Amino acid sequence: MSQSIVAINARNQFRGKIKEIIAGPVVSEVDVETPAGIVTSVVTSRSIEDLGLEVGSEVLTVFKSTEVLLAKL
Amino acid sequence: MSQSIVAINARNQFRGKIKEIIAGPVVSEVDVETPAGIVTSVVTSRSIEDLGLEVGSEVLTVFKSTEVLLAKL
Amino acid sequence: MSQSIVAINARNQFRGKIKEIIAGPVVSEVDVETPAGIVTSVVTSRSIEDLGLEVGSEVLTVFKSTEVLLAKL
Amino acid sequence: MSQSIVAINARNQFRGKIKEIIAGPVVSEVDVETPAGIVTSVVTSRSIEDLGLEVGSEVLTVFKSTEVLLAKL
Amino acid sequence: MSQSIVAINARNQFRGKIKEIIAGPVVSEVDVETPAGIVTSVVTSRSIEDLGLEVGSEVLTVFKSTEVLLAKL
Amino acid sequence: MSQSIVAINARNQFRGKIKEIIAGPVVSEVDVETPAGIVTSVVTSRSIEDLGLEVGSEVLTVFKSTEVLLAKL
Repeated sequence: MSQSIVAINARNQFRGKIKEIIAGPVVSEVDVETPAGIVTSVVTSRSIEDLGLEVGSEVLTVFKSTEVLLAKL
Repeated sequence: MSQSIVAINARNQFRGKIKEIIAGPVVSEVDVETPAGIVTSVVTSRSIEDLGLEVGSEVLTVFKSTEVLLAKL
Repeated sequence: MSQSIVAINARNQFRGKIKEIIAGPVVSEVDVETPAGIVTSVVTSRSIEDLGLEVGSEVLTVFKSTEVLLAKL
Repeated sequence: MSQSIVAINARNQFRGKIKEIIAGPVVSEVDVETPAGIVTSVVTSRSIEDLGLEVGSEVLTVFKSTEVLLAKL
Repeated sequence: MSQSIVAINARNQFRGKIKEIIAGPVVSEVDVETPAGIVTSVVTSRSIEDLGLEVGSEVLTVFKSTEVLLAKL
Repeated sequence: MSQSIVAINARNQFRGKIKEIIAGPVVSEVDVETPAGIVTSVVTSRSIEDLGLEVGSEVLTVFKSTEVLLAKL
């Protein structure tokens, strides 16, 4: 298990609990239950192992503002 | 103003109201008030104009699951 | 099936028909035939189901301008 | 001017001519005329300089399939 | 200043010192000197303020494996 | 095998040798040994074939500055 402890900017983050992991041979889907609803992340299956993540783990979902698309309702 | 009307997958979306726009010559920062907190998006200043966005507009912030990083608390 | 109907900025979009879907356990590759050639998208297999996409479906491929890399010929 | 000569995968590429550059202090918008329509890229103003890009330059716009969002018409 | 303390996966990270910040009205370019060379990041000018970053600050540059493009030499 | 020969901006690139490929049905993980450490890329399994990549191949790992997140140590 290999990790870095860091401080990150607190924008575009949702804290939650892992509700489900759909494991694949290369990447896995991680569904995180946050106050805002389910946030879905696709990460390498190896990084899930490196961080020791499992259903119930408390995680932070983070995304950059340059990745956010705006649509008009 | 040029738009496409489409149906998108309802995951990783937060609906909200634009609270602030920091306009720049090329890109602008759009801060959207959602039930989950502020979601910040950086888009081209032209696309804000194309969509006719302004403070108070109802928007959907969308991001792909492949863009979401997981961090452990 | 869960969808949102929205208006999005009409830049960096190519409309086309799905020509092939390579389905995987977590993510799938979707090849879309557009006037500009094949545009390939990798999305979660779940979102393909949520949107009811299949070979022949009419879709819009969308990407942000911040994701586009420029190379010189 | 600093460059690398490489071979890249030929999917999700559109070849075109730069039609307009909106220069900013940090990033610039580059609008490329391709057979498929205008592809817009936001890159650092420094990289435009490094590659010697200007209106009329022939470029390749490249994006990863993991960045492409699918919407249903 | 608003931050979250987290553990992140140790792949695709380069530790370094900020060598230069090109500040813009919306986004800024941050050039980080790492053992591997300069890594350039474009982030919102606000997040630089939120994290209290300045020339000489020790930072970690992080990027997802889904964002990395492969080219052949 | 289908490729384009191009010149790209020399920032945010790490040259290395492929150390391992974890092949999946849709995407594969490619681990590249660079002077800076291992850089991991997730690309479509098809693009690995298109470029003829295998363990030992010399490649360039490239990522955009807008994709790089900054964390404070």
